[in-house]
Amino acid sequence: MEDPSPWEDGVRSDLDSLFHPRSIAVIGASPDPEKMGHRYVRILQEAGFPGPIYPIHPHAPEVLGLKAYPNLLAVPGEVDYVISCIPAPNILDLVEQCARKGVRLLHSYTARFSETGHPEGARLERELLERARRAGIRILGPNCMGLYYPKRGISFKHGMPREEGPVGMLSQSGGNAVEVVFDGALRGLRFSKVVSYGNGIDVNEADLTEYFAEDPDTRVLCIYVEGAQEGRRFFQALRRAAQSKPVIVLKGGRTGAGGRAVLSHTASLAGERRLWQGIVQQAGGVWVDTLEEMVDAAVAFTFCPPTVGARVGVVGGGGGRSVASADDCEEVGLTVAPIPPEMRRAWRGVDPSLADWLGNPADGSILQGSPLSVERVLEMMADHPSFDLLIANVGEHFPMEHPDGIPRTRALVQAFIGTARRVRKPLAVVLGDTLALYPWQREVMGELRQALARAGVATFPTVRRAALALRHLITYYRRREESGHLE
Amino acid sequence: MEDPSPWEDGVRSDLDSLFHPRSIAVIGASPDPEKMGHRYVRILQEAGFPGPIYPIHPHAPEVLGLKAYPNLLAVPGEVDYVISCIPAPNILDLVEQCARKGVRLLHSYTARFSETGHPEGARLERELLERARRAGIRILGPNCMGLYYPKRGISFKHGMPREEGPVGMLSQSGGNAVEVVFDGALRGLRFSKVVSYGNGIDVNEADLTEYFAEDPDTRVLCIYVEGAQEGRRFFQALRRAAQSKPVIVLKGGRTGAGGRAVLSHTASLAGERRLWQGIVQQAGGVWVDTLEEMVDAAVAFTFCPPTVGARVGVVGGGGGRSVASADDCEEVGLTVAPIPPEMRRAWRGVDPSLADWLGNPADGSILQGSPLSVERVLEMMADHPSFDLLIANVGEHFPMEHPDGIPRTRALVQAFIGTARRVRKPLAVVLGDTLALYPWQREVMGELRQALARAGVATFPTVRRAALALRHLITYYRRREESGHLE
Repeated sequence: MEDPSPWEDGVRSDLDSLFHPRSIAVIGASPDPEKMGHRYVRILQEAGFPGPIYPIHPHAPEVLGLKAYPNLLAVPGEVDYVISCIPAPNILDLVEQCARKGVRLLHSYTARFSETGHPEGARLERELLERARRAGIRILGPNCMGLYYPKRGISFKHGMPREEGPVGMLSQSGGNAVEVVFDGALRGLRFSKVVSYGNGIDVNEADLTEYFAEDPDTRVLCIYVEGAQEGRRFFQALRRAAQSKPVIVLKGGRTGAGGRAVLSHTASLAGERRLWQGIVQQAGGVWVDTLEEMVDAAVAFTFCPPTVGARVGVVGGGGGRSVASADDCEEVGLTVAPIPPEMRRAWRGVDPSLADWLGNPADGSILQGSPLSVERVLEMMADHPSFDLLIANVGEHFPMEHPDGIPRTRALVQAFIGTARRVRKPLAVVLGDTLALYPWQREVMGELRQALARAGVATFPTVRRAALALRHLITYYRRREESGHLE
Repeated sequence: MEDPSPWEDGVRSDLDSLFHPRSIAVIGASPDPEKMGHRYVRILQEAGFPGPIYPIHPHAPEVLGLKAYPNLLAVPGEVDYVISCIPAPNILDLVEQCARKGVRLLHSYTARFSETGHPEGARLERELLERARRAGIRILGPNCMGLYYPKRGISFKHGMPREEGPVGMLSQSGGNAVEVVFDGALRGLRFSKVVSYGNGIDVNEADLTEYFAEDPDTRVLCIYVEGAQEGRRFFQALRRAAQSKPVIVLKGGRTGAGGRAVLSHTASLAGERRLWQGIVQQAGGVWVDTLEEMVDAAVAFTFCPPTVGARVGVVGGGGGRSVASADDCEEVGLTVAPIPPEMRRAWRGVDPSLADWLGNPADGSILQGSPLSVERVLEMMADHPSFDLLIANVGEHFPMEHPDGIPRTRALVQAFIGTARRVRKPLAVVLGDTLALYPWQREVMGELRQALARAGVATFPTVRRAALALRHLITYYRRREESGHLE
């Protein structure tokens, strides 16, 4: 079934050209490194923005080695994109300057509008929107971090990766976007574009979801939303996007107190959890409850091939961990598959003493010293049609105390990477991050984590979180299969 | 209401004296550092066991600088405690030697008994128990790591802390016990005794729970159990223990697959989730689903004072984080308390521009540059009777990019520590552990985590986990208050 297209033809091309500015001016770019205006200039330099960056400051002759101008109109060249870091009462004046200068997108980092709860803040916000509309200027924000677009050298936070990747995000919170980018980066995610849009008075969740639905650089989409300016359009865009790419949605303000917090954050009307969850799931989106769960799901969707089967094979870790892994998998809705008889026969040929004892999860402590090994059992599960999904525990505290524990653990991780690359099934590697009591352990863990991330292997800090992410994967692809959008 | 005492007078004193051996023999203590017998000797040396350690090996003249003996009977002095690392078929012979030597406790690290599923393994296990009973020898295990008792210099894992503390644990899985000890240690937990008891054919969950219920060194008890040898006695012991100390229970094998994994791990009959959860909660125990949740609860019970109120005050992090924090708290059953009018009045005196805007959670980005600060709002909440519980977000990625971000974050953490020490309310500090993309960040995070752990402040990696741990805290103390066991 195909929707009648809700597309307004202008939206995608409009936003797309706005996100490709030839030049950027930063209003309020002070020489003081504590000021956000200063930091935007530095961040754009670090991100490698290729066009001119114009710092605007009433007195400073230069900022970070760039000639500064007393106001926007004093800039000699054209300015496509303006980042405002000046106090809210000065924003209307800025809009007039933008209009005269032919600016197309005004990103207002400037906050203290409707979210303050003061009537004059709300009034100023309405006035800002009206004047911008009259002048044909699009507004991003106010009260937001703006655009992170590594491919084009645009960023809003020091240290975010310069490399691009397939994950896109729209977020009403800059801080939450930053968490997703950094947490995700540590686990190998890279981003196409991230748009923090704050109060969303003009460019809103519906525009951005429509845009990302069509964006060829975005294969996985994350959405952090606190309220909807255009609920119906947003829902339609979500549905369209979910037909071609996984869309992971975290709704902030699901509870009474969360809704109150939303009011003072982006002044959105938060609405009720059940309603939102129903809408998101009906549209084929992936509903998550925390930012960690969002990153986990994005990791699974980015690095794992599509699958609809829930039968999981689990290897590694000791006996207690194997029991816990089985509970974790089944409690989130996966099926811990029984060992097929012919696999047991094959085991018998290698190590008869274990063949009837070992199960799924395959307990790594039973396998110690056996010619059967964790790696080999994983390979066998990878090649057998009884298993749709694989989870491989590094069990990092287990081999660490052995004299050759570090090289052995490295070899184990390399074997997992080899299997992940070879097999066309989702493989989730579990590498704990809290077990590292000693600095040398943290170093080795960091090295292994980096190796896994570089190899594009989906890695999770616990079996529970891995299992839940895999569950999201199969739920999404099942829906897509049912609705005929998965070949 | 008081139970009729289920106490068998001998149990506590019996186990207590068994856990205080004057000497330990390690059977199968080879010079090969890969072998577990070798490692037990080294671990006991590292842990500082004050009495003689006797390595037993058929040929080796010495192991790790200690004179070795060809068999137990060749040891000149008395032996109270024996650790067996020899293959299962030799265990009956060892029992005979133990009987002749007057050994009181035989800890069988040796595995491959009933858990293998082979009838001969089960037969051997029965025989082991019968012969030991006849000789008056208690068996710990088989198939377990044994005793970690730092105060007495006994340990079963390289690198576990030598300092003692108030947390006790009984665990059917050595690996899970190791995870709890290391994860907990990183967050400041130290342990009275940890007993890994494996198949539990003699010393079982009921004995150990009775023992820990009365153990004056144990203020918080963790239990990882896969099945019950003596369900009724265990339940009574649990109930008695929970009257005087929090008892946190993780049941392995709650699902079908988990139950099958239990069979090949400790050969216990796993039983059904609902039944177990009901029994544990009826006994006043704290039911958790994962090891992480167990450690979180142990952290809360160890470092936080008792309370029964659910009204939480939250500070720190940006706007999106504040929304997520509110949702996290309310979704686990806490109440995000509204700001009382007199607190708002006090805010007005300090910063009128924020007084009507700021809420609970108190958004750290709103407070930036204000004479009101995250620290000050926390102090005010700590001193106000409208708040029973406090959660303070370090928001570690937020100040890190400022030029003075590191000293500022250090100062913030010091302020949280000061408040935690002064106030008689639970204060949970949230310090993320996955945001550290860069090595220097990991170092600073590690330093801050250590400072919090050393100061005895309850610290959690996410708000969600902090909120859930606080929820366990109040649920437990409410039950104790209702049943008249809390003064």
